[in-house]
Amino acid sequence: MKQGKASIRFEQPPEVVAAASVVGKKEGEGPLGACFDEIEQDPMAGQDNWEAAESELQKRAAETAIRKAAVGKSRIRYIFAGDLLGQGIATSFGMAGLGIPVFGLYGACSTMGESLHLGAMTVAGNCAEYVLCATSSHFGSAEKQFRFPLEYGNQRPLSATWTVTGAGAVVLGRQGGTVRITGATAGKIVDYGIKDSMNMGAAMAPAAADTIYRNLVDFGLEPGYYDKIITGDLGTVGKEILLQLLKDKNMDIEKQHMDCGLEIYDNEKQDTHAGGSGCGCSATVLAAMILPQMEKRKWRRVLFVPTGALLSTVSFNEGQSVPGIAHGISLEY
Amino acid sequence: MKQGKASIRFEQPPEVVAAASVVGKKEGEGPLGACFDEIEQDPMAGQDNWEAAESELQKRAAETAIRKAAVGKSRIRYIFAGDLLGQGIATSFGMAGLGIPVFGLYGACSTMGESLHLGAMTVAGNCAEYVLCATSSHFGSAEKQFRFPLEYGNQRPLSATWTVTGAGAVVLGRQGGTVRITGATAGKIVDYGIKDSMNMGAAMAPAAADTIYRNLVDFGLEPGYYDKIITGDLGTVGKEILLQLLKDKNMDIEKQHMDCGLEIYDNEKQDTHAGGSGCGCSATVLAAMILPQMEKRKWRRVLFVPTGALLSTVSFNEGQSVPGIAHGISLEY
Repeated sequence: MKQGKASIRFEQPPEVVAAASVVGKKEGEGPLGACFDEIEQDPMAGQDNWEAAESELQKRAAETAIRKAAVGKSRIRYIFAGDLLGQGIATSFGMAGLGIPVFGLYGACSTMGESLHLGAMTVAGNCAEYVLCATSSHFGSAEKQFRFPLEYGNQRPLSATWTVTGAGAVVLGRQGGTVRITGATAGKIVDYGIKDSMNMGAAMAPAAADTIYRNLVDFGLEPGYYDKIITGDLGTVGKEILLQLLKDKNMDIEKQHMDCGLEIYDNEKQDTHAGGSGCGCSATVLAAMILPQMEKRKWRRVLFVPTGALLSTVSFNEGQSVPGIAHGISLEY
Repeated sequence: MKQGKASIRFEQPPEVVAAASVVGKKEGEGPLGACFDEIEQDPMAGQDNWEAAESELQKRAAETAIRKAAVGKSRIRYIFAGDLLGQGIATSFGMAGLGIPVFGLYGACSTMGESLHLGAMTVAGNCAEYVLCATSSHFGSAEKQFRFPLEYGNQRPLSATWTVTGAGAVVLGRQGGTVRITGATAGKIVDYGIKDSMNMGAAMAPAAADTIYRNLVDFGLEPGYYDKIITGDLGTVGKEILLQLLKDKNMDIEKQHMDCGLEIYDNEKQDTHAGGSGCGCSATVLAAMILPQMEKRKWRRVLFVPTGALLSTVSFNEGQSVPGIAHGISLEY
């Protein structure tokens, strides 16, 4: 393993063996509707509440990815998974039934990057043949956790994003795929003092800028090395800030940049304001769009950078700022 | 790396370079009082609220461990850390200032085991020279998060445990210590359908039994191989259940078994009922008692098994059970 100051390049890159996405009705009606493995029309996914529904989506995504990987569930050694809810209950109840050891993660909406980073290190370090990386989010459970009761019908500012109802799962292995994780840049916690919980894009953009900058500098690359540099859920507001922050450092990624939160909905028609967000946003777009585009060789090199805003209602109510974190994963065909 | 069915044995075992513990007043008055690196008398640790106090303890434990490791902060490549609070805010705000990439974890009170497992795989897999593993808990922030306002003064049943105010941190490295992590058994989520949030010991005991059983079977060991088999925070109730569950499988660990939750307080004098609990419980006992006993060669082989109960107030209020998880770490002098 070669290590840049903050980045790691895998000598034997783990491969993406399979990926799966399960989303809700609204996501199914968006521009990527045709690309998901499953669209669940029922917001409760047949369960009694939103949290259990989110667990159900995560379980289905995991099971679908494992089935598509076709290596047998017993060969998946570890699960790296997380979600947005307090104490990660969507993951605990979603993954319990699989009977595979679980490492519970919390990186807010950056969790898919965290899980891929940890999963890739585990496979590359020869500690597992196959691992599963998964995350989920659910509009209902997230609004209940972080904001207002849905019944309250509060107005959302245009800077607010819409939490994706969906789960994504990826099986990584030593071999068996065409897309490989060639390197990764772990996220530092970056705090610009943003205190507006309705403007997560602004809170996360500095962390994304930091991770992208370190990835390119550590590996001695120009932005053009990547066909795409894809952030998680910065949305319209965060995207602008990201591009400006990097321009201030003489790094122009405008041509390469894409944001999962701006791909998953038609913001104008679907009234999703600044775009999609949530752990499930980058995870489902990865499985439904990014990896397929790479497998079709439309993109050969992608820097995938899920972004997270580190807050809880407790920290927010106590007047704390909202630090951001972003984990960068280099994907190559 | 040799892999048992659920366990891994490291060919080049990572070493414990340094460890540190910072606790509150009550823990300082307990039987291990003389062993902690720092006893903070102020429940607020000079901060404005309990959550910030917990962050402060975690930060101090991390800084002390890094100082004791004497390898220079810049060589600590990753932090693996978590806590009990929703969205891991004690960790986010505690670790933000260190400027080291962070992988946020959630394994409830088993988090120290999860962080050591991930940290050890990362070092053993040649992905980092040094890493920091840390967790924390705080009586005030945990009661606020999970139970009743402290001012309410509710009666606690005798099966209830007392959340430890404290943080523990460990620096792992390729070399530089005397105690090594020779292997690990990752935790599965085990659900016996327990629904009593005031009896966490009963919820976690089946997971501890599962992990200990798999560790011994995977490595072909008898319980007597270990000088001590040390669970995290089963307390008096969970300890009995653990011993019985393993006896039912013809495995008797009574001679070796110890529980961090039963070591940190004098339950009779300190009115802590079933014992101590929280991420900080096993983490501080590891740093203050277990590792020092090993360094003095009183114990040469220890199986360290932090135990966690996977619930949130939301899952509890929705009538969900409380599954358990336990991560097993083999420590050898």
